Amino acid sequence: MMLIFVLIIGIVSTSFQKDNLRKEPVITSKTITQVAVVVKDIEKARQAWAQVLGVKVPEVSIAESHFSRPTLYRGDPSDAKAKLAFFSMDNLQIELIEPLGGNSTWQEYLDSHGEGIHHIAFAVRGIDGMEELFDLRGCPTVQRGGWDGGAYSYIDASKDLGCMLELLENY
Amino acid sequence: MMLIFVLIIGIVSTSFQKDNLRKEPVITSKTITQVAVVVKDIEKARQAWAQVLGVKVPEVSIAESHFSRPTLYRGDPSDAKAKLAFFSMDNLQIELIEPLGGNSTWQEYLDSHGEGIHHIAFAVRGIDGMEELFDLRGCPTVQRGGWDGGAYSYIDASKDLGCMLELLENY
Repeated sequence: MMLIFVLIIGIVSTSFQKDNLRKEPVITSKTITQVAVVVKDIEKARQAWAQVLGVKVPEVSIAESHFSRPTLYRGDPSDAKAKLAFFSMDNLQIELIEPLGGNSTWQEYLDSHGEGIHHIAFAVRGIDGMEELFDLRGCPTVQRGGWDGGAYSYIDASKDLGCMLELLENY
Repeated sequence: MMLIFVLIIGIVSTSFQKDNLRKEPVITSKTITQVAVVVKDIEKARQAWAQVLGVKVPEVSIAESHFSRPTLYRGDPSDAKAKLAFFSMDNLQIELIEPLGGNSTWQEYLDSHGEGIHHIAFAVRGIDGMEELFDLRGCPTVQRGGWDGGAYSYIDASKDLGCMLELLENY
């Protein structure tokens, strides 16, 4: 009897805590560092953007799984790769992304929407805790990974906020 | 004979000028002022964004045609209306847009993509000349309008840059 009572108290209090956590602020940083456009052909897109902005055509780099935080796509290991190019504006970067195979949110977006603005990226601290808080709000982490010196997580906040967010943490 | 010669010279030189203009920089400003999310229900979305960011729920304002620069949608007068809400980040605004009827790029986006990031907005000077330069690149103005003290134009740069841009000019 006592055990059942303790169990019930436990369940109610956990659910109460979760409910409170669900209403907590998640992103305390107010700095948006990137807006990213998924494209089919980064060669063509980086030339066009450079011409429109009157700037040098940026280098292309490759995003791929890194041992520091291996790429996961919907919880499973993924060999997702992409070509990236960055344009530095006064106050943030415009990022171009061309998916190069492997299961990824980039390819998924391209398949279902065509080219377009994939996400808004926030500079954050404590990326793992944030994933949990978003999850409690019904916003799952669709893809996560890292590089030498940093970590990223894509949060599908479409149900809640109407779009995809990226959390970016530089260690 | 002379007339034909002058005409040919004229056509060749205009086409040459157009070709040069096509390669000219269009946006010299490097300041992105807004990233906009089109949503179905701005009441729900502004509450959720405010909760996630830990900030006050912003007011809702109405965008509609203004005598200073009446709203045009694909060249025709439009009574497009939308509810807007703005979140001030450190370096730009997140704008939420709920279309309220009338022909608009907002409703078009919602119908074909569902909720999502509709555009990136640049602060510019000389919005009308920019429309022409974008048009030469195959990027038409899909919607334009104004308000007391400013003007906006949505450039469908999806063919060229992979997304929609907004030009914003404060007079």
